[in-house]
Amino acid sequence: MCGIVGVCSEEGDAAGLAYAGVASLQHRGQESWGVAIAEGASIANWSAVGLAHRPVDGLVGRPAQLAIGHTRYSTTGAPGAENAQPLVARQGEHTVAIAHNGNVTNALELRQELAAGGYVFRSTSDSEIILALLATAEGAVVEALPELVARLEGAYSVVALVDGALLAFRDPKGFRPLVLGSADGRTVAGSETCALDVLRCADQREIEPGELVVAGPGAEPRSLRIGPPARRRSCVFEPIYIARRDSLIGGERVEALRERLGERLGHEAPAEADVVVPVPASGLPAARGYARTSELPLVDALVRNDYVGRTFIEPDPVLRSLSLRIKFNVVDGVEGLAVAVVDDSIVRGSTMRQVVELLRSAGAREVHVRIACPPLVSSCPYGVDIADTSELLASGRTLDGVRSEIGATTLAYLSLDGLHAALGAADGHGLCQACLTSRYPTPVPQRLDKLHLAVASGDA
Amino acid sequence: MCGIVGVCSEEGDAAGLAYAGVASLQHRGQESWGVAIAEGASIANWSAVGLAHRPVDGLVGRPAQLAIGHTRYSTTGAPGAENAQPLVARQGEHTVAIAHNGNVTNALELRQELAAGGYVFRSTSDSEIILALLATAEGAVVEALPELVARLEGAYSVVALVDGALLAFRDPKGFRPLVLGSADGRTVAGSETCALDVLRCADQREIEPGELVVAGPGAEPRSLRIGPPARRRSCVFEPIYIARRDSLIGGERVEALRERLGERLGHEAPAEADVVVPVPASGLPAARGYARTSELPLVDALVRNDYVGRTFIEPDPVLRSLSLRIKFNVVDGVEGLAVAVVDDSIVRGSTMRQVVELLRSAGAREVHVRIACPPLVSSCPYGVDIADTSELLASGRTLDGVRSEIGATTLAYLSLDGLHAALGAADGHGLCQACLTSRYPTPVPQRLDKLHLAVASGDA
Amino acid sequence: MCGIVGVCSEEGDAAGLAYAGVASLQHRGQESWGVAIAEGASIANWSAVGLAHRPVDGLVGRPAQLAIGHTRYSTTGAPGAENAQPLVARQGEHTVAIAHNGNVTNALELRQELAAGGYVFRSTSDSEIILALLATAEGAVVEALPELVARLEGAYSVVALVDGALLAFRDPKGFRPLVLGSADGRTVAGSETCALDVLRCADQREIEPGELVVAGPGAEPRSLRIGPPARRRSCVFEPIYIARRDSLIGGERVEALRERLGERLGHEAPAEADVVVPVPASGLPAARGYARTSELPLVDALVRNDYVGRTFIEPDPVLRSLSLRIKFNVVDGVEGLAVAVVDDSIVRGSTMRQVVELLRSAGAREVHVRIACPPLVSSCPYGVDIADTSELLASGRTLDGVRSEIGATTLAYLSLDGLHAALGAADGHGLCQACLTSRYPTPVPQRLDKLHLAVASGDA
Amino acid sequence: MCGIVGVCSEEGDAAGLAYAGVASLQHRGQESWGVAIAEGASIANWSAVGLAHRPVDGLVGRPAQLAIGHTRYSTTGAPGAENAQPLVARQGEHTVAIAHNGNVTNALELRQELAAGGYVFRSTSDSEIILALLATAEGAVVEALPELVARLEGAYSVVALVDGALLAFRDPKGFRPLVLGSADGRTVAGSETCALDVLRCADQREIEPGELVVAGPGAEPRSLRIGPPARRRSCVFEPIYIARRDSLIGGERVEALRERLGERLGHEAPAEADVVVPVPASGLPAARGYARTSELPLVDALVRNDYVGRTFIEPDPVLRSLSLRIKFNVVDGVEGLAVAVVDDSIVRGSTMRQVVELLRSAGAREVHVRIACPPLVSSCPYGVDIADTSELLASGRTLDGVRSEIGATTLAYLSLDGLHAALGAADGHGLCQACLTSRYPTPVPQRLDKLHLAVASGDA
Repeated sequence: MCGIVGVCSEEGDAAGLAYAGVASLQHRGQESWGVAIAEGASIANWSAVGLAHRPVDGLVGRPAQLAIGHTRYSTTGAPGAENAQPLVARQGEHTVAIAHNGNVTNALELRQELAAGGYVFRSTSDSEIILALLATAEGAVVEALPELVARLEGAYSVVALVDGALLAFRDPKGFRPLVLGSADGRTVAGSETCALDVLRCADQREIEPGELVVAGPGAEPRSLRIGPPARRRSCVFEPIYIARRDSLIGGERVEALRERLGERLGHEAPAEADVVVPVPASGLPAARGYARTSELPLVDALVRNDYVGRTFIEPDPVLRSLSLRIKFNVVDGVEGLAVAVVDDSIVRGSTMRQVVELLRSAGAREVHVRIACPPLVSSCPYGVDIADTSELLASGRTLDGVRSEIGATTLAYLSLDGLHAALGAADGHGLCQACLTSRYPTPVPQRLDKLHLAVASGDA
Repeated sequence: MCGIVGVCSEEGDAAGLAYAGVASLQHRGQESWGVAIAEGASIANWSAVGLAHRPVDGLVGRPAQLAIGHTRYSTTGAPGAENAQPLVARQGEHTVAIAHNGNVTNALELRQELAAGGYVFRSTSDSEIILALLATAEGAVVEALPELVARLEGAYSVVALVDGALLAFRDPKGFRPLVLGSADGRTVAGSETCALDVLRCADQREIEPGELVVAGPGAEPRSLRIGPPARRRSCVFEPIYIARRDSLIGGERVEALRERLGERLGHEAPAEADVVVPVPASGLPAARGYARTSELPLVDALVRNDYVGRTFIEPDPVLRSLSLRIKFNVVDGVEGLAVAVVDDSIVRGSTMRQVVELLRSAGAREVHVRIACPPLVSSCPYGVDIADTSELLASGRTLDGVRSEIGATTLAYLSLDGLHAALGAADGHGLCQACLTSRYPTPVPQRLDKLHLAVASGDA
Repeated sequence: MCGIVGVCSEEGDAAGLAYAGVASLQHRGQESWGVAIAEGASIANWSAVGLAHRPVDGLVGRPAQLAIGHTRYSTTGAPGAENAQPLVARQGEHTVAIAHNGNVTNALELRQELAAGGYVFRSTSDSEIILALLATAEGAVVEALPELVARLEGAYSVVALVDGALLAFRDPKGFRPLVLGSADGRTVAGSETCALDVLRCADQREIEPGELVVAGPGAEPRSLRIGPPARRRSCVFEPIYIARRDSLIGGERVEALRERLGERLGHEAPAEADVVVPVPASGLPAARGYARTSELPLVDALVRNDYVGRTFIEPDPVLRSLSLRIKFNVVDGVEGLAVAVVDDSIVRGSTMRQVVELLRSAGAREVHVRIACPPLVSSCPYGVDIADTSELLASGRTLDGVRSEIGATTLAYLSLDGLHAALGAADGHGLCQACLTSRYPTPVPQRLDKLHLAVASGDA
Repeated sequence: MCGIVGVCSEEGDAAGLAYAGVASLQHRGQESWGVAIAEGASIANWSAVGLAHRPVDGLVGRPAQLAIGHTRYSTTGAPGAENAQPLVARQGEHTVAIAHNGNVTNALELRQELAAGGYVFRSTSDSEIILALLATAEGAVVEALPELVARLEGAYSVVALVDGALLAFRDPKGFRPLVLGSADGRTVAGSETCALDVLRCADQREIEPGELVVAGPGAEPRSLRIGPPARRRSCVFEPIYIARRDSLIGGERVEALRERLGERLGHEAPAEADVVVPVPASGLPAARGYARTSELPLVDALVRNDYVGRTFIEPDPVLRSLSLRIKFNVVDGVEGLAVAVVDDSIVRGSTMRQVVELLRSAGAREVHVRIACPPLVSSCPYGVDIADTSELLASGRTLDGVRSEIGATTLAYLSLDGLHAALGAADGHGLCQACLTSRYPTPVPQRLDKLHLAVASGDA
């Protein structure tokens, strides 16, 4: 759950544009961010911890025709500028900068192979493997790329600066998203179309699984193949939760997709309810769809405190008991009623448990929880770091067990078939849905954290 | 546009509760915050710059039966902890702490009088006048209060700690809001009911204009009068814009009031439009009402980047031209259409100008701007520091002049009569609407900034 | 142990000069600093926590003819900008700013009297009493001052801005230092002559106990009396420890005074030693004098790590055991020898204990500790906040008890008579030496901390 | 001018000891610092910008038998944690951490060779070359080291963690210092003996040029050769200026060496002076020696403000004109006199120019400047980053030209012969004195900054 963006602009404003792209992908990572630009044969880079509220000195306005950017979601305990991307190789066979979204699942083996072959890893990141492959490529990277990435398993959507060009490529299964746009002599690649919109790209399309796009100043971007045709495995959690609601997935607005999930849920799991209440803001589109199908009134009864973010600290029993109310409040319209409360998903369950309690304390007679996706039961080895399997509320629990945990009157999830129908993916064709089915489309290491154990780092 | 909260709790958890109250009133001021607690005959206080993301060390958990809190909206150029409230008088006739929302309009005269009478002002704040009056009161403050506040003109909703009690009082015209609640042996006063909800107060009512509530441990709160009956002048901008949508004003949910403003606007100023689009998030309720009346589809076509706040910096021409897109994006549903875009108000007009441009660039054929309140034409001397009169877009401009400035196809504001009807205030009875009519319900200094010129401070 | 400076400069560069004065008095207080300037009838002020490494924005270069500055030594647990001086009264009978060095010993009574008379204290600081007296003075402060300060007991060297003039005055006993200089149409008052040197003042003299100097643009400074002749009681710890070695006290260089203390100590308490070793940097002058008298070689055998300041943290047993060595090291010249180690004073004794151990571990056969002042046995109520009486190593211990605590072979302090002789003060005439004799020259509150208990504050 | 330290301790307290070592080498670099420890087959590391006032969380107390540390002197404009050492290679042929003092002069060629051989450089630092050589070594690093370092030209004193051992080695010419000590089952290597003293090492000796020391838990440290006998070229600026005065060089205390430089200067360049004044603190030992030879009184007439460091900012003409006085003051003893002012060296000359002016303004009749080393005329390619050749005051100026620039009555430097005699180095044997003679003992790149130009980085 990182965001990446790459810009090629003949006008020389790529540094500023990449920074703007980073700002538009902030929802994919708030931990740290960075930008790298090509300057002749060398690369300059900047990074910072936290939100991209203000550019680092010297970045925006520095002339550049090629730039890439990254927003990082902290996946381990150690935040800090050290782990920020883009990663840079300043002198090898090639000068390279990369920004990576995804997770290489055969990282442990590849690190050993590459190390055996002479590459020296400076970090513990799987992304450095991709940096290593590009930096050590013999001859033109673009030509070598198909062979190089053939060694990678898992998920990798990548933008890179190398050999005077911007590269944007995506693994053959297309786990993580990557889109392409252009406008006014600029070529932009990014995790989502919302980044293309910000940079005013009119022409927008998906970069295909296994596709490589090469863009350089003064030439039309070229499209090449870096992998054989493979069964597409695009992350199902992107339309469900990750993507910004104004982005397009498969040519369709994410908001519309989510409404359809709600509609389908309304057909599958109607509730004996008087009103439909969304969990703001994530559950709103699905609740809209659910209400439409159910022909029940949609009541925007839960209010979020916009100023309470992830950093709100509850160090004290008094505050802990109040924290739910600080985060959410209930407006009218639920007293004495049976409420169907709709959210996009349940991860650990702590929010939903609080929401149910809040609705009951506001006088709701019954609280029917409706979730617009199937139960999340397995952790993701492809770069979505929500939680370990053991932390997922639905993992190892029956439906009634989950219902009981969150205190709901009834609980229903969207079925897998319903999900497929809503997304237009018959039998889940083209989707990676391992988090819902525990069936991984690629071999995964028995212990996902093995790599980290092997090369643990105390970077501070 | 500050927030205040006062807590009396026999259980001794008033410090933590006041902090939670501050967090729930964050929308009324993000510049700085503070909390003061009574400890025997003395007062301890804490303050910090910025959001109340985390309590200051030692505050929450410190036993206290009486506490007050404040969130401050920066009204001048000089932020900083020095200007944070509560203000404390540690040794005078009385030990006092106050948190004040409003603006004393005869501050200059009162400062001179009080100074002549021996009080020494340490700050330039008009709030120190109220502190001075309470701290120098002869005998019990509660008994002296009617006489003391008789000297004050303008707006003052105040919570105070003095003489072992929590005081909450409001000027006789009731310019700024103040509400009261209780639960489990706690008494809570605050700017809005959302703060009472956070502190789980079931019993909620308005503190009347001219009313003083006195609460102390081990006794029922008492209600007293501090001023003669006067014509109520409650701020019309509270329901229009300031209050959180889950708060109650006049017993009615703010969200419902705003929807009604939109409905009325729909009747008054229908648009030849295909769809209604809200400006998120402030314009949503009014747009909902407008769409209902107009029988037009509501399309949530504008998307806000939640991570871009007031601090986003645009130091560079490249970024400046992109900043609108970084803040807002358009989803589908406007291409080729005539759009009625609805917001709660227009202040300086810069956002609306950008929104119109954005909708046009997304293909909107026509953009009809509909504003759910009358034009803002005069600045506010009673504590709402939106802008100087000269900065208000509608000040000194015809309707067509404003329309032209924002680039709209047509523009309509809600009429004053419509506003009154929607708020159930015949002829504006009970409202201060000086910002809309330029008719001030009290004498105001010719130059509002005179006080500041007279006692300018360079606090850093 | 605060530093104060006041500047009157017709050229309008008083703000910058006051800041430079603050930097030169940094040794008197590293906790916080501040500067206030007169601007017409009002006062602007700035303050910051920590060292004055860089001026606050907007301070230096702001035109001002009158300015005062302060450096603060943290005397209580609560640092922070809130306690920084200068203190400002913005509107009372007079607009006033003061910077105070000393301690008012009848603060509790005066606060009560002043509060009874209508003054409202905002802080718990005794300095606010002086602010209150000046701000509430009837008529010209200069004329009222003798009567005002007659109410103050204890120590006060003060610079103030009031009525368009710079005031500098000193209590009639002259507890704390205050000097005056002039150059090029500037008048400067400050705690020590080193501040006058920095501001290039050629004419330098002491401000007499009970003297008031009034300086304003365009006029010669005037000297007035604010108190009747009294027995002078200048702090003996200024020449012993506090003052910078390049300052003058009584017309004599502090360095020379300290050398003389060492010489006298050499006569009184010769040691059977081979070499004399100073404790750097404070003990160097006394050691020089001691070596001269003893006709022993001075060996600069102890080396300080210049980068280890008060902030060095020792969170761990490993580091704690190493911390001495991190702070000091020994060079050659002590192995197998009897060493006389000389310092200016012993407060808590922790440094001397470590120094003795270090010298022994470096092979010193004997370590004879020689202290160039009598034992410190009582805490100071006049503004020198070294330690409470109970924390002073010599308090309640015999000479041999102290010797044993620090592990020395022999221990000798300079006698009181010797001190007097070296300072040219027969029988201690003109000195406050309460810390050495426990005889206080003024009545002091039974419990010095009573005031703080009574008006405790939790400022954060 | 960096500091390095390595610790092998069976007791497992190497992390804390390395941190203490870093604190003792702070005078060699205040820009950033770092520590790395061996944990099984992997390495954990920490770093921070600024002084080592407090250890980073989790560092001290973490059990480790092997650790290295580094203090960094900023040599380019870009400070920041990114450039902090130790550098770590986490996975290659070997897991390696290094801390390096010196400068590899054939860096450009070696980077190209290593890059051609498959190593990918992530930084622009020459130190990464050494990391690369060790990380890619075939077989045991210790055995491969002689061959590896044979490729390096220039200066390298290095401590490293590799293959479960601490390595400490020094280039065959011994440009930069490195010493070895042991105590209580600990082995410590460091830049100077002051670090060994802090860690209480009794046995202390120089690590020879071309020597490698290998230490591991449970075994005596081994000494090996990594290079053939070469003509020693130890940096002459270490005894002159860099080393802490309590360190030993060639078995002799640095303080004593510096006194001898001053004595010799006294013989060579006596002054018609009344007194000798040191420039504190660097010039004190030389002044002591000069005074002894000259039989002139040593007057400690210049006083430094201890609180004004490198960070003091002079943004304003008023302050700039005062800055000298803020940094230095004069005590008595120079009025009407001819003064010989002594310092260890002149780099850019700005301090000496101010000192001369200050002494004159204090009444010195004549100011004879005496410098205890020959003129600095060439920049250093071996890791001492004082200034570029063009910035050195003596570069391209005659003796009289320099004298005139600093405003001295007369000026004399110590002769090269005198320097040699004082250091006991006949004809400069064993010394690198390129900065004094412009004769470099190794080939150096025509343009020293060529490397940096070639691989410029914008790390922020």
